[in-house]
Amino acid sequence: MTDHERESELQVLTADECYRLLATQQIGRLGVNAEHYPLIFPVNYALERDVIVMRMAPGTKLTAADHANVAFEVDEIDQHTRSGWSVLVRGLAEEVTPAHRAELIARTQGTGLTTWAPGEHGHWVRLIPQAISGRRIVPGRLPPPFEAAAYL
Amino acid sequence: MTDHERESELQVLTADECYRLLATQQIGRLGVNAEHYPLIFPVNYALERDVIVMRMAPGTKLTAADHANVAFEVDEIDQHTRSGWSVLVRGLAEEVTPAHRAELIARTQGTGLTTWAPGEHGHWVRLIPQAISGRRIVPGRLPPPFEAAAYL
Repeated sequence: MTDHERESELQVLTADECYRLLATQQIGRLGVNAEHYPLIFPVNYALERDVIVMRMAPGTKLTAADHANVAFEVDEIDQHTRSGWSVLVRGLAEEVTPAHRAELIARTQGTGLTTWAPGEHGHWVRLIPQAISGRRIVPGRLPPPFEAAAYL
Repeated sequence: MTDHERESELQVLTADECYRLLATQQIGRLGVNAEHYPLIFPVNYALERDVIVMRMAPGTKLTAADHANVAFEVDEIDQHTRSGWSVLVRGLAEEVTPAHRAELIARTQGTGLTTWAPGEHGHWVRLIPQAISGRRIVPGRLPPPFEAAAYL
């Protein structure tokens, strides 16, 4: 174990902590498979209990996400203290359409989520988590920039 | 076109602008296909000309990234002004091993990239971009929170 490892810790977060942290942010990144790549799109979101609600314009992102395995990542990282946390959700995304139960539509739209990228964003998407994980980097001593061997 | 759309603009960035913005940040998110999901991992990175250099611990992320199509996303988004930019790189990732030319190894390690999550991060990975795209949301009027119909 190096000095750096002793003074900085990587903590695994519980699912409860992960959801609590998700509730503190508005911007996440959605991972979808499209065009032969695991693409990443920043989106704003809201939580409806444990479900992540997003609104999207028609296009690559929506087509690739609907009824597909997706990932959703949220983090808050301070470049100066080199500390922070990140949460990763794995789940199934589904567009909420008029064919859904009125109660589900009302709950989803009840999040009050607005979108702020210009353009049409009329499509509501729910991401139902199948797994959630997170980690926190507790502030430690900055790695000495000229002793690279310590990090190999 | 709504009022919001008139006052806020989504600008497509040129490749040069995308690279210039990448050079301003240290943290990005790597998208890799693993475990049946397009997973997303925050990583710190450096640029070596147009190549994105990362260091990784052994594990899911490294195994999934090596010789695979990956995505790399960097953004800077201000939740208060609801503006910002994001850049998305699509490319091929490859671990730099002792089998590579000494000159390539030197160039890669010459980025001086250190890692700051605790643990072993001895593996150097290069991401060779195959496509880069970006967009900027220019600050516009905040959407009125109680006129949801304006955004549908």
